[in-house]
Amino acid sequence: MSSTEVKLSRLLILAQKFNNFYLTGLQKSDIRPFVVEGQQVGLVKSEVFKQLLKYPEVFCIRDCEQTKQGVVELNPAFRDYNERTEQLEKVLRNLRLEGLFPALQGWRDEYFEVKSEHRALLKMERAATPLFGVRKYGVDINGYVRHPTQGLCIWLQQRSNTKETWPGKWDNMVGGGLSVGFGIKETAIKEAAEEASIPSDLVKNLVSAGCVSFYFESRQGLFPNTEYVFDLELPVDFVPHNADGEVQAFELLPAKECVERVFTPDFKTTSAPVVIDFLIRHGHITADDVLDFTQIVELLHVPLQSLYTYKTRLELVQKQKQQQKKLTGNEDTNCNCDCLQSTKPTENGYKNGP
Amino acid sequence: MSSTEVKLSRLLILAQKFNNFYLTGLQKSDIRPFVVEGQQVGLVKSEVFKQLLKYPEVFCIRDCEQTKQGVVELNPAFRDYNERTEQLEKVLRNLRLEGLFPALQGWRDEYFEVKSEHRALLKMERAATPLFGVRKYGVDINGYVRHPTQGLCIWLQQRSNTKETWPGKWDNMVGGGLSVGFGIKETAIKEAAEEASIPSDLVKNLVSAGCVSFYFESRQGLFPNTEYVFDLELPVDFVPHNADGEVQAFELLPAKECVERVFTPDFKTTSAPVVIDFLIRHGHITADDVLDFTQIVELLHVPLQSLYTYKTRLELVQKQKQQQKKLTGNEDTNCNCDCLQSTKPTENGYKNGP
Repeated sequence: MSSTEVKLSRLLILAQKFNNFYLTGLQKSDIRPFVVEGQQVGLVKSEVFKQLLKYPEVFCIRDCEQTKQGVVELNPAFRDYNERTEQLEKVLRNLRLEGLFPALQGWRDEYFEVKSEHRALLKMERAATPLFGVRKYGVDINGYVRHPTQGLCIWLQQRSNTKETWPGKWDNMVGGGLSVGFGIKETAIKEAAEEASIPSDLVKNLVSAGCVSFYFESRQGLFPNTEYVFDLELPVDFVPHNADGEVQAFELLPAKECVERVFTPDFKTTSAPVVIDFLIRHGHITADDVLDFTQIVELLHVPLQSLYTYKTRLELVQKQKQQQKKLTGNEDTNCNCDCLQSTKPTENGYKNGP
Repeated sequence: MSSTEVKLSRLLILAQKFNNFYLTGLQKSDIRPFVVEGQQVGLVKSEVFKQLLKYPEVFCIRDCEQTKQGVVELNPAFRDYNERTEQLEKVLRNLRLEGLFPALQGWRDEYFEVKSEHRALLKMERAATPLFGVRKYGVDINGYVRHPTQGLCIWLQQRSNTKETWPGKWDNMVGGGLSVGFGIKETAIKEAAEEASIPSDLVKNLVSAGCVSFYFESRQGLFPNTEYVFDLELPVDFVPHNADGEVQAFELLPAKECVERVFTPDFKTTSAPVVIDFLIRHGHITADDVLDFTQIVELLHVPLQSLYTYKTRLELVQKQKQQQKKLTGNEDTNCNCDCLQSTKPTENGYKNGP
């Protein structure tokens, strides 16, 4: 086996690792759409919805006869954003006290806004989002240098040991979650200043370069993440330094060493897609060198959006039934999807998988 | 509706257009894996396999009880590459005479090698590959100029009016299919010389930049295509000119005009993903400007590889059955997938879709 082939397998194994839920988790267990106001905003595993069954006044866990799918719905009787938020939070605080879910031990008193098609539906404690498989969006900056002797070099940060998630791990130079009211590039610029003290005359060279999507699962729950990526070429003599206490070190690595770092257990698994995408876009990982190149690129952009389409599927089934009714003139069993509480075991809509 | 939103919808509609088979075709009809020597190398729609039923000595069209899926298998009794090629070609020539499939009217006497995991299985007339949903691989070069006054400009080619496919349409500066025995970058360099007369001192700046994958369907059949993309920055004063008669014109367009050209019916639909990917990677289509940005990026990289996994699924089912047997001590119905010729209608494995 040539060294190229060895490299190939490692990259594919890594891409499979940060897509462990997409590739195997989705098929394995009973997973249900989490529906708020008729829109799917999450995915809930059986170990979570079994606990939610204890709160029938908050969650309606039922089978929809139309889509042949079990769903977890937030009680549609809740009137507005605030009532939905409060009712959900009551449950989350209870679950936290029960200590069943490690994710809730990282409670931050920090909210994440759950939206659907540009409408805010509720806010949820950030630490709880993996339990509901809520899609998260972030920004990442690939800080790089065209070094006169070492070629393409990449700045990495080492996360602070006091961080709640992935403490002490190596990570992209700058990264952060999207917050309500901030644009995507705006967030990147803000994070560049806070995390790496990048001055405005350098950050003006920021180039939007697309996004990566992957679906990771850990003990904490589900991570259907999309990261908007930016490239920033920096002068050879610039050295980033941290301003917010979230970073303990920065290191500039030649592209080859950067690849090696990504494979170590010291690198944050969910940041690897951003580095791999950067190295592919800049010609440092190529289809001629790496077997399974196509598969790796596909695993940097998994179709997350197509996994959150309960509403679309419901509409499709309803349309098909109406058409059939027109053709046959017969009334069809009409399920308006109110709590059927069927005792039949349900199938998740993703059984045949991606 | 703002102008940004208008732009958004158009891009998503275009991305849906070149993925019409991925998004709707896959779910719609009875589609079966095309299996050669136990490996899935294609997908066959019912209108095609209904014709193939007339050749039971060449195609074994059956239900596999293990995967609960209908398959179209090339007779496993054929001994080698040559016998498989000859037997298949006999059928294709017959089908061509019958005139049922428009694809075969474009017969080119040019072979495409059907491979699986780096092993060549047979060669097939190139015009017939869409009938069997065989994955095709190509290379494309984004030729661009950083213009002092007009900013980023992109070279497009207009295809010759005499070309078999997409005659007269606008296309990427350079593109071509991968051929047996040529590397990916090697093919790009060869095509750059033939199609646009790019000299070696310029082509040395070629940068590998990843790949796009999409699944298009036309009257000709299925196009599960992967294009390896390269970027090539060119001097402002360089003008490409054609050497092989396949191009009738070249035009340099500022990025904004290039976007508009891609939306016209004069642009080759299956080349649009390459241009959109280029404009995204270079910061000319951004997440702040375009609604559904994430969805568009996902549709530039659809998981083609996961649609050609009959063998993996079969192995998985067999493994599960073995485990069950161990647990229960019972012998299970053993289907070794030899032509069962079941009369029960079969389901395709992709029914629930991507």
